[in-house]
Amino acid sequence: MERDRLVMSAKMKATVFHGSNQIAIEEVPRPRAGVGEAVVRITLTTICGTDLHILRGEYAVKPGLVIGHEPVGVIEELGDGVTGYNVGDRVLLGAITPCGQCRACLSAQWAQCGHGEGIEAAGGWRFGNTINGAQAEYLLVPNAQANLAKIPDELSDEQVVLLADIASTGFSGAEAGQIKIGDTVAVFAQGPIGLCATAGAKLMGASFIIGVESDPVRMKMARQMGADVVLDPKQTDVVAEIKRLTNGGADVAIEALGIQETFENALRCLRPGGTLSSLGVYSGKLAVPYDAFAAGLGDYRIVTTLCPGGKERMRRLMSMVQSGRFDPLPLITHRFPLDQIVEAYELFGERRDGVLKVAIRP
Amino acid sequence: MERDRLVMSAKMKATVFHGSNQIAIEEVPRPRAGVGEAVVRITLTTICGTDLHILRGEYAVKPGLVIGHEPVGVIEELGDGVTGYNVGDRVLLGAITPCGQCRACLSAQWAQCGHGEGIEAAGGWRFGNTINGAQAEYLLVPNAQANLAKIPDELSDEQVVLLADIASTGFSGAEAGQIKIGDTVAVFAQGPIGLCATAGAKLMGASFIIGVESDPVRMKMARQMGADVVLDPKQTDVVAEIKRLTNGGADVAIEALGIQETFENALRCLRPGGTLSSLGVYSGKLAVPYDAFAAGLGDYRIVTTLCPGGKERMRRLMSMVQSGRFDPLPLITHRFPLDQIVEAYELFGERRDGVLKVAIRP
Amino acid sequence: MERDRLVMSAKMKATVFHGSNQIAIEEVPRPRAGVGEAVVRITLTTICGTDLHILRGEYAVKPGLVIGHEPVGVIEELGDGVTGYNVGDRVLLGAITPCGQCRACLSAQWAQCGHGEGIEAAGGWRFGNTINGAQAEYLLVPNAQANLAKIPDELSDEQVVLLADIASTGFSGAEAGQIKIGDTVAVFAQGPIGLCATAGAKLMGASFIIGVESDPVRMKMARQMGADVVLDPKQTDVVAEIKRLTNGGADVAIEALGIQETFENALRCLRPGGTLSSLGVYSGKLAVPYDAFAAGLGDYRIVTTLCPGGKERMRRLMSMVQSGRFDPLPLITHRFPLDQIVEAYELFGERRDGVLKVAIRP
Amino acid sequence: MERDRLVMSAKMKATVFHGSNQIAIEEVPRPRAGVGEAVVRITLTTICGTDLHILRGEYAVKPGLVIGHEPVGVIEELGDGVTGYNVGDRVLLGAITPCGQCRACLSAQWAQCGHGEGIEAAGGWRFGNTINGAQAEYLLVPNAQANLAKIPDELSDEQVVLLADIASTGFSGAEAGQIKIGDTVAVFAQGPIGLCATAGAKLMGASFIIGVESDPVRMKMARQMGADVVLDPKQTDVVAEIKRLTNGGADVAIEALGIQETFENALRCLRPGGTLSSLGVYSGKLAVPYDAFAAGLGDYRIVTTLCPGGKERMRRLMSMVQSGRFDPLPLITHRFPLDQIVEAYELFGERRDGVLKVAIRP
Repeated sequence: MERDRLVMSAKMKATVFHGSNQIAIEEVPRPRAGVGEAVVRITLTTICGTDLHILRGEYAVKPGLVIGHEPVGVIEELGDGVTGYNVGDRVLLGAITPCGQCRACLSAQWAQCGHGEGIEAAGGWRFGNTINGAQAEYLLVPNAQANLAKIPDELSDEQVVLLADIASTGFSGAEAGQIKIGDTVAVFAQGPIGLCATAGAKLMGASFIIGVESDPVRMKMARQMGADVVLDPKQTDVVAEIKRLTNGGADVAIEALGIQETFENALRCLRPGGTLSSLGVYSGKLAVPYDAFAAGLGDYRIVTTLCPGGKERMRRLMSMVQSGRFDPLPLITHRFPLDQIVEAYELFGERRDGVLKVAIRP
Repeated sequence: MERDRLVMSAKMKATVFHGSNQIAIEEVPRPRAGVGEAVVRITLTTICGTDLHILRGEYAVKPGLVIGHEPVGVIEELGDGVTGYNVGDRVLLGAITPCGQCRACLSAQWAQCGHGEGIEAAGGWRFGNTINGAQAEYLLVPNAQANLAKIPDELSDEQVVLLADIASTGFSGAEAGQIKIGDTVAVFAQGPIGLCATAGAKLMGASFIIGVESDPVRMKMARQMGADVVLDPKQTDVVAEIKRLTNGGADVAIEALGIQETFENALRCLRPGGTLSSLGVYSGKLAVPYDAFAAGLGDYRIVTTLCPGGKERMRRLMSMVQSGRFDPLPLITHRFPLDQIVEAYELFGERRDGVLKVAIRP
Repeated sequence: MERDRLVMSAKMKATVFHGSNQIAIEEVPRPRAGVGEAVVRITLTTICGTDLHILRGEYAVKPGLVIGHEPVGVIEELGDGVTGYNVGDRVLLGAITPCGQCRACLSAQWAQCGHGEGIEAAGGWRFGNTINGAQAEYLLVPNAQANLAKIPDELSDEQVVLLADIASTGFSGAEAGQIKIGDTVAVFAQGPIGLCATAGAKLMGASFIIGVESDPVRMKMARQMGADVVLDPKQTDVVAEIKRLTNGGADVAIEALGIQETFENALRCLRPGGTLSSLGVYSGKLAVPYDAFAAGLGDYRIVTTLCPGGKERMRRLMSMVQSGRFDPLPLITHRFPLDQIVEAYELFGERRDGVLKVAIRP
Repeated sequence: MERDRLVMSAKMKATVFHGSNQIAIEEVPRPRAGVGEAVVRITLTTICGTDLHILRGEYAVKPGLVIGHEPVGVIEELGDGVTGYNVGDRVLLGAITPCGQCRACLSAQWAQCGHGEGIEAAGGWRFGNTINGAQAEYLLVPNAQANLAKIPDELSDEQVVLLADIASTGFSGAEAGQIKIGDTVAVFAQGPIGLCATAGAKLMGASFIIGVESDPVRMKMARQMGADVVLDPKQTDVVAEIKRLTNGGADVAIEALGIQETFENALRCLRPGGTLSSLGVYSGKLAVPYDAFAAGLGDYRIVTTLCPGGKERMRRLMSMVQSGRFDPLPLITHRFPLDQIVEAYELFGERRDGVLKVAIRP
């Protein structure tokens, strides 16, 4: 009892959102694991573009929330009903933490998890969105049985942290596009997610990959990740050039930015019957010019994907790193301790110094 | 030679488009079959909503074209290289006539046929669009080997004529929506194509089908074709009601009209992870409000489908009529001789007298 | 505490397996719900062909096990961590009870559930196989959150009990066969599962369904469930006749018996490129004559399916009964109280009196 | 007329099959192109394992047939109705030459082509099987419009000749297995087709590929093509080792030999729910031990694939070579003029001198 009281009152450092452009490292209560839950001591995390949207007030979360959704750590506590794990196990958690037991999960749509019962738009994304997140010393993991993915000994924390969201989302852009051996693929925007979409397109057998990006650091990295050509939209009519390079249009276009221009160009650069696989987070109205999809007669397909989560997805992605098929390390360009996360947000938000992803260590 | 010259100069009656709101029955040269082609003597055809778009100048075709794309008839002449058929065979032809031998066809995207080589948006639709069509006494059939579908003796012309486009397109709305046993489906607009989409949804195992329509004749027919409920958008907030009836949103919505309102409502009435299967022909810009698809985070899918064609599609659809699984006859509400097709266009265009489809006999 | 002790020592009646051809109704301890579990008071169950295999010693389970895997009942007790349910809720449970949180479940292969961690052949089938089953007064439900499917008020116990296994398995034969609108389908054996496979084939849009069966009661029921023709293998060369009726071979054949003859005939009756969807439970070696699948050159596909389970599957199947798309009641031909289950096993095992399925009420 | 008579009587050298173990280079009539056909002057071809089966009388073709089915050449003559090509164009032809216009082709099962009408087991394989083949100076190409694939200038004949069959078949083993990013894959036998299946598995994103082979040359080449590990079945219990390496069984196993041992091991090494993708040509009865697929309860899938053909498949495969994704050149180990093809058959048949594939130049 005495020990419990102590633990209950234990504190930890965490990145707390307090409203537009207000985040701070603060002392907050350390979580305890209830039935089916686990507490993980965070050893590495990162900042996502979505965290910037939150910080800037473009995506609403409630003030007081600990943010961050890309957690690597060590199991600190296991709640009742969680089996097959031990305190001290190194684990990776997806940004999406499905329950596995609701209507959505039992329909294989884990990212739309309804938490036990129904189905909820983007409901699988909980960390740093609807519950406390990963930019902290400790993290409470819901539905731990479905989400704790043990990390193989030979993989470092840095080798796996980008799998939680960036790689899982990026690859899913290629997967949802149903890329086949021999397809031509255009990937619009080569930020971290677009870069992973490029890598995913190559992994699935695309014959020719065209990156679209104007930042020189990202253009170069796009080639490293698998792009055969990178077009600068500031200097090239990308739709015309993609049509020329692909002899009539790309089989698949992946949108990885979330604005009208890239969405529309992604649709326009397709051959009839092509697929637009959208990863961007949009705001406002999207216009779909009727001529861009043959007025509905072109057999086009538009698919949107959040991010596949759950421990099996993480296991599979880690296996790709283990066998050398995918190396996420070049994407980590900067490293900060948790105490300096506010500086890290500034650097990342301003895209200074060729930053792609920052690693944050508590 | 003498006989050939006679035939070369032979004439036929045909419905010729001369510009906005100008069609007429005229004498035009009767076609002859070249290599790989056939000539079919039309015994039954019909008028499609798309023909109205052409007539009204909303969809551009070149003046002088014979219009119509739903042909039933008898083989009159077979060109070189067409085998397995005899003059006199009764045949059905799809509205879409793929070559079977281009990049699109050899990728199983027959409606985007490139005619021997590449791929072309809606290129499979040739009759009454890019070549002379079916509202005539005779019809020249390209790529006859891929398109002449023999009609079983026990099926009448009226039993098969709606399979050429209406049923093939309507069913494809359900097929492209990948409806599964137990799905809930909403079908927006219950014109001939929407009615066939409703029938298709039932054929594929939907557990609950909601039609959206305000015309009383069509509302009644929607129930006959398989709708469990029909909502009148003039009297009901259809999005709210569909969400209530389906306990959170339909699994699949089929759009069968082609306007902003139905497209947007079809997207809004879906559960997260749902599919919008679009059959409409759109004009102008479509707006996709970001909240209607969870800002790109809802795993939504939007698919557009032209119309599957080719003789194998026609064979399969005829087999559904033969075994009693689908009965298109109730959709034919009026009958006209070819000579009176202008009157038929008026009735059909004004939706007078409870018209659904008109049968036209040369 | 006092109350707990009383409940702990509470007894219930159950059907206990003691070895080959030895079952008995006995008093056994009543289960209690642990973390994530529930106890359901059984109100209706049935006997499956698989139970006969167990009784006859053809499928091994450990002596002392309570058998039965098709449970309908009322929630009696809810363990910690189960939310959204109340004691007293009427529920249906699938024969397969996936955890939703292991590698198999998170790969959408719920029937091969690994119970929290990996993947196990047929691991999702637990009731009456690896844990106590449903032919009893009370049933302990593992992973209750993923498996308790609330029964709509308007559906009776008898309307839903066959969904637990028979209909879910039978329909899955059609689903795994990927039946499309216009397919021809042959279903080998018209026992309860074959009859539901026939119904499933019709629900998915098969144009022509051929049942294979020699029992007159089942031949008749096959027609009621959707077969266009039923062939008696004792009187007809079924392979030749199916090839004749389908003009070259069925698109899909469903095997619902589990012996060499039906498996081989199901393969032989297919057109090139066809699919054999196998539901049978096999023993001994299956021979696949090389000529039956074009020596490997015929693009044939053989798929085996256990039975989809989990509460979402049950919800979807109940929705099919609710809307009148599927009526399982004709398949229940006999009714017994739990006390007379031994007599029910005899009748069912000997296929006396036109029995298809027996309803067992505790 | 004079010229025609001369051409009609023109001769060419060809490899003619005369019965078991009897082939010879002979003078035979040079083909002429009829409607829809083309004549190609062969510049490079090769010998396939299937040709050895023919030579040994294990696969029956009619005496007098010119054999060989992997043609690269130059268009010599174009029949009526073939458009978009010129005499002199360099072209690759698939081993499978679909018509594009029959029931099979219009169902996307081109390898089971029915030549204009129905569907025929392996009917798409015509060259060197049912019509004269490619080991000759000239080749008559049926359905030329669907099959003449222009070779990009930058690709040499040797870079494309193995795409006709070996790579198309090998890749299709991976494609039919529906390999996903992160899958573990075992490939049984590393002959030319198995090697290409290995390459295909890597191209589709397999995380870990296990080759099974005992020939040292092929073991080494397997690693070059993408295998992470190669097991020697003479020294290792491959099923046990694959289960150990994959922690419970491979997701996909590809069979590339066609004998009982490899088929059975490919099935046994799978995890529950896994897929056996079979490329082998079998003879005699295959036994499927019931325990190897969980008695039908393991959700296993067995798929067989012939070889995708047609010009679009060839175009896509050439694009993979063009962009450097796949390099078939290391598989060509020996080169012979057509005159010495009998010696080439001997070397290839006896697997002398580390032979993988031989290039034959007329």
